Amino acid sequence: MNEQHHLNVIENTNRKQRVAEDQLAFGKEFTDHMFVMDYSTEKGWHHPRITPYEPITLDPAAMIFHYGQTVFEGLKAYRTEDDRILLFRPEKNFQRMNRSSERLSIPLLDEKLVLTYLEELLRIEKEWVPKTAGYSLYIRPFIIATEPNLSLAPSNTYQFYIILSPVGSYYREGIHPVKIFVEEEFTRAVRGGTGMAKTAGNYSAAYIAQQRATDKGYSQVLWLDGVEKKYIEEVGSMNVFFKIGEEVVTPLLNGSILEGITRLSIIELLKDWNVPVVERRVSIEEIFQAHKEGIVEEVFGTGTAAVVSPVGELTWNDEQMIINNGHTGKLSKKLYETLTAIQTGKQQDPYGWTVEIKE
Amino acid sequence: MNEQHHLNVIENTNRKQRVAEDQLAFGKEFTDHMFVMDYSTEKGWHHPRITPYEPITLDPAAMIFHYGQTVFEGLKAYRTEDDRILLFRPEKNFQRMNRSSERLSIPLLDEKLVLTYLEELLRIEKEWVPKTAGYSLYIRPFIIATEPNLSLAPSNTYQFYIILSPVGSYYREGIHPVKIFVEEEFTRAVRGGTGMAKTAGNYSAAYIAQQRATDKGYSQVLWLDGVEKKYIEEVGSMNVFFKIGEEVVTPLLNGSILEGITRLSIIELLKDWNVPVVERRVSIEEIFQAHKEGIVEEVFGTGTAAVVSPVGELTWNDEQMIINNGHTGKLSKKLYETLTAIQTGKQQDPYGWTVEIKE
Repeated sequence: MNEQHHLNVIENTNRKQRVAEDQLAFGKEFTDHMFVMDYSTEKGWHHPRITPYEPITLDPAAMIFHYGQTVFEGLKAYRTEDDRILLFRPEKNFQRMNRSSERLSIPLLDEKLVLTYLEELLRIEKEWVPKTAGYSLYIRPFIIATEPNLSLAPSNTYQFYIILSPVGSYYREGIHPVKIFVEEEFTRAVRGGTGMAKTAGNYSAAYIAQQRATDKGYSQVLWLDGVEKKYIEEVGSMNVFFKIGEEVVTPLLNGSILEGITRLSIIELLKDWNVPVVERRVSIEEIFQAHKEGIVEEVFGTGTAAVVSPVGELTWNDEQMIINNGHTGKLSKKLYETLTAIQTGKQQDPYGWTVEIKE
Repeated sequence: MNEQHHLNVIENTNRKQRVAEDQLAFGKEFTDHMFVMDYSTEKGWHHPRITPYEPITLDPAAMIFHYGQTVFEGLKAYRTEDDRILLFRPEKNFQRMNRSSERLSIPLLDEKLVLTYLEELLRIEKEWVPKTAGYSLYIRPFIIATEPNLSLAPSNTYQFYIILSPVGSYYREGIHPVKIFVEEEFTRAVRGGTGMAKTAGNYSAAYIAQQRATDKGYSQVLWLDGVEKKYIEEVGSMNVFFKIGEEVVTPLLNGSILEGITRLSIIELLKDWNVPVVERRVSIEEIFQAHKEGIVEEVFGTGTAAVVSPVGELTWNDEQMIINNGHTGKLSKKLYETLTAIQTGKQQDPYGWTVEIKE
């Protein structure tokens, strides 16, 4: 390992008062340490370090504040019943982070090296991985452009951070299928845009549609494609699957849909189970038509936070469809249980998806 | 004025070493003071203050770093030959900032009150407004979401800043028509998206296309609409105009095009001069067809930085068109000269566009 990649650790001697696990809200509590690394055009990525969790100090002209050059990731560390700590396919997150960075003109990371830094951070923070079943330590890697310059051009300096947040179960009161509103006015992403990238601007752009859906009594919106407003792309910030008859269908990755790691794992599980699964364009009209024919058996979103989130109701303009009488479908349940069992080490991992954090 | 809107001034006693005016680059040098104001759900916008120009300190979980909830503006202060300081239609900037904020679910500002704060900041920093002809003080207001929370929802706290940067002339070596590449792969914005808002994510998303155009020897890209990749939207980060025969045509504001204040002023000038000007959808094919007929007389971009930027060449796939033999057109020149003369007080302002900063 090159000198400029040597990991320094500055211990936090002033440990935080911990919130009781049953009081945890998502993404509000952070651990004692974080990971930081710098980038400059001259040195590349350098000076990796673990430091106390502390504020970021930037010039008001830092490019992150003006032109949004930034990418992020989200994954979780789980504590097993026998007290080991597992990550779920973390290499996929850093690969995707690099794909996001390419789109945003951000210099790429050494994916394998960065994973070793994350592992070291987790060794230091292992007591922060919750012990309660269904709880986990949410991991948020992100890169920000830091050069103080108002010119419209990629930054010459960046910082890469990893922060950690202990989080409660997404399904504290059990899985309940949600009501989804098909969004016709606002657009999440379009071909040639940034929809495939995990970049900040995609997320705040969706708040206005989410707020209007909430006001109407829905949990999330279903996003249609930006070109024809016809093909299904995502649900809220999740990928989406439909069980139509014996077949499971999910939108084909087209450049405006995020390549979900849970999405990928579900496709691989279904293939392993010999359940027919197809990635293709799927229109909202097709789904409503299939529902009229009585063959839409299950609909569910997938993502790191919820893993599997069943959809009980879809509303498209004046049309409404109730899925599986508003109950969680058998396949959705089996997928949720299998994936979470693998993630938390309750079930053997035949796919090599989990990575154990060893001393 | 309500107590929470009382403007505090903390003087910077440690003034900066100034860069010689002929050494100024765009957006790299900042003045001694800045304006800051806070927002919380409980208090609304409060605690406006002018402070020394100093770093921003934020929690690593501050929402600006993760979900891009932010808007900005750009305008300039000009020094007249008789040493007055003028702003150009600043109320339009704060009106547009509020429209951007609406799209990004950010709480609105009191446009008139904020303009008085900017005026006070400029009174304090008046020595920083460059004296060299063609130079100006660039003004960058921006709002960032500051709540430390990884939940996907609008922030409950924000900060509004105004920073000031003395800048050189955009045309240091005189106006030269630029070469533009028509972008077919990447998309800047789409209906239902954030194209009409001045928000960070729109800008870094365009770097990749800009870089490829630069590599091919072009100055900027021309953006087509995201739906059909057929209709003209913007040039780089400017609005665009075409003089076809006796008529001037510019794309109709459709929700994915930024409502430029220079664009608006040019339309108003042309109307005042009885030059026919039309806002409508205009396809790239129409422009190339008109060029074959020999009636495309002038093409120019408009924006705060360049005011008017003539286009000398447009390349679309394998087709190339040379405009006005690569020279700046008469109308482009007249528009540039008139607007800059009004902005800098060289010419009387019959439109009430300029606002003088008085003691």
